[in-house]
Amino acid sequence: MRELKFIETIRQRAGNARSGVKLGIGDDAAVLEYDKSKYLLWADDMLVEGTHFTKEDDSFDVGWKAVAVNISDIAAMGGIPKYITVSLGCSGKHSGKYLSKLYDGIFAICKKFGIQVVGGDTNKSDKFIIDVSIIGFVEKKRLITRKGARIGDLILVTGPIRNGRLTHLSFTPRLQESRVLGVYKITAMIDVSDGLSMDLNRLCERSKVGAQIYASSITLVPGLSLDDALYYGESFELLFTIPPKEIEKIKNDRKISDSIFVIGSVVSSSQGVKIMTSSNENKRLKIAGFKHF
Amino acid sequence: MRELKFIETIRQRAGNARSGVKLGIGDDAAVLEYDKSKYLLWADDMLVEGTHFTKEDDSFDVGWKAVAVNISDIAAMGGIPKYITVSLGCSGKHSGKYLSKLYDGIFAICKKFGIQVVGGDTNKSDKFIIDVSIIGFVEKKRLITRKGARIGDLILVTGPIRNGRLTHLSFTPRLQESRVLGVYKITAMIDVSDGLSMDLNRLCERSKVGAQIYASSITLVPGLSLDDALYYGESFELLFTIPPKEIEKIKNDRKISDSIFVIGSVVSSSQGVKIMTSSNENKRLKIAGFKHF
Repeated sequence: MRELKFIETIRQRAGNARSGVKLGIGDDAAVLEYDKSKYLLWADDMLVEGTHFTKEDDSFDVGWKAVAVNISDIAAMGGIPKYITVSLGCSGKHSGKYLSKLYDGIFAICKKFGIQVVGGDTNKSDKFIIDVSIIGFVEKKRLITRKGARIGDLILVTGPIRNGRLTHLSFTPRLQESRVLGVYKITAMIDVSDGLSMDLNRLCERSKVGAQIYASSITLVPGLSLDDALYYGESFELLFTIPPKEIEKIKNDRKISDSIFVIGSVVSSSQGVKIMTSSNENKRLKIAGFKHF
Repeated sequence: MRELKFIETIRQRAGNARSGVKLGIGDDAAVLEYDKSKYLLWADDMLVEGTHFTKEDDSFDVGWKAVAVNISDIAAMGGIPKYITVSLGCSGKHSGKYLSKLYDGIFAICKKFGIQVVGGDTNKSDKFIIDVSIIGFVEKKRLITRKGARIGDLILVTGPIRNGRLTHLSFTPRLQESRVLGVYKITAMIDVSDGLSMDLNRLCERSKVGAQIYASSITLVPGLSLDDALYYGESFELLFTIPPKEIEKIKNDRKISDSIFVIGSVVSSSQGVKIMTSSNENKRLKIAGFKHF
């Protein structure tokens, strides 16, 4: 995957995190020192017309999604989103009404999650571009990264897994679920933006482990194919790992018990990332997903 | 100006700054509470191929500029830049070499100014897009905004004003100058991204004042026309106001005395924003500049 290699190259060039930085490139958000009890979380996601949405899509939904994907990044770290900036690329062909509805969507999701819009920038571009940068906070003891899954941990995902093809413009980020999970011992977490396969591979790579998952355990919304869940992405579910002894506690918590599903367990990195299919073949889970390049 | 009106509409919809926010939309950077002695500054700027650079431009310069414009925003608030995230839009036609040189430029300017790259994102886009988000800090007593110019203040600009047409991809942000100025009483400041005219009008609007400037006092680099200095932009000089009694102190400071020029003074808003031309006509300074829409 060109993107994974590219990000790894940049991560190496950026070097180790230095003063003030707890965690740099390579997770859902950067983690900066803030005060004695909290870290500052910082993420940035860009949506481009023709890639993440079409010019026929309702701009309310485009605005909603641009903020939602960023909230999802903060949720994946266990945090609470607080502030966003919005940078646009647009041209004269994008009407005042288009922009006004875009901001209706932005303000609607910001209101729902208690987020303030504090800055922005507008630029000329034929294709519509929206880039949202988000700042949130997380209690130090609740910070969850992609690094930390250990052999023997259970692998879980929120769900039933949504159909990204249908809901990618209107999904609700799993922030509430993340905050409920935050009181338990979560060893690693990532949001599923590019399909279970790619994001599970990312989590495993950062944690230096392998994974064994079971197709029969992956719970899907009606109409969603397993292939789409694995390789299409845009479900924005949370994929996470827990020590086995945590499962009973979580399963007894009614705030979350119905929306999490055990799909497998963490194994050694030498075993790779595998899926047991419905026909009982144990296959390597190929690294493929939503293409960003 | 459609852009100014649009930003004002969004500023009104965003409402007053609430908990944790010292200053939201409408300045070079958002200002967030940080600790007892410092504010956190946060800005975001997007560059789009065909608008801010061409596909023939050296990608080293594109990377440099994308960071430089953000450093300039932090300088305009009196602060020190610390961290950036980099989001890209690119496609298969942008070679590994193009991306590698882009990051050479990014890391070169980051090294020069002590900035860490802590995050990023890549997306598919035919036209190249680079969006940099920046976090910096400023001592509370050194924060400078666009709001605060008072009638009778002098208006100054760093310079001689650079030729944006020639240097817009390779300029050095006026960070050092900003930090030297920070020990004096600066009442308002903005960086000149869109030409003296538009940015002076912005500063006056936020400060609810007018301005009287003098063409004969505007010091330009050789070859730059006054019209370009007023209306073309991309010089990224700092435009600021000071109480008259500060001028002697600043003029005696050798670290800055050669690189600042008094170009006029602040008047009441009812007088508008005017320029005395070289033929002694006092004209309204029209609000025109680099078009973002």
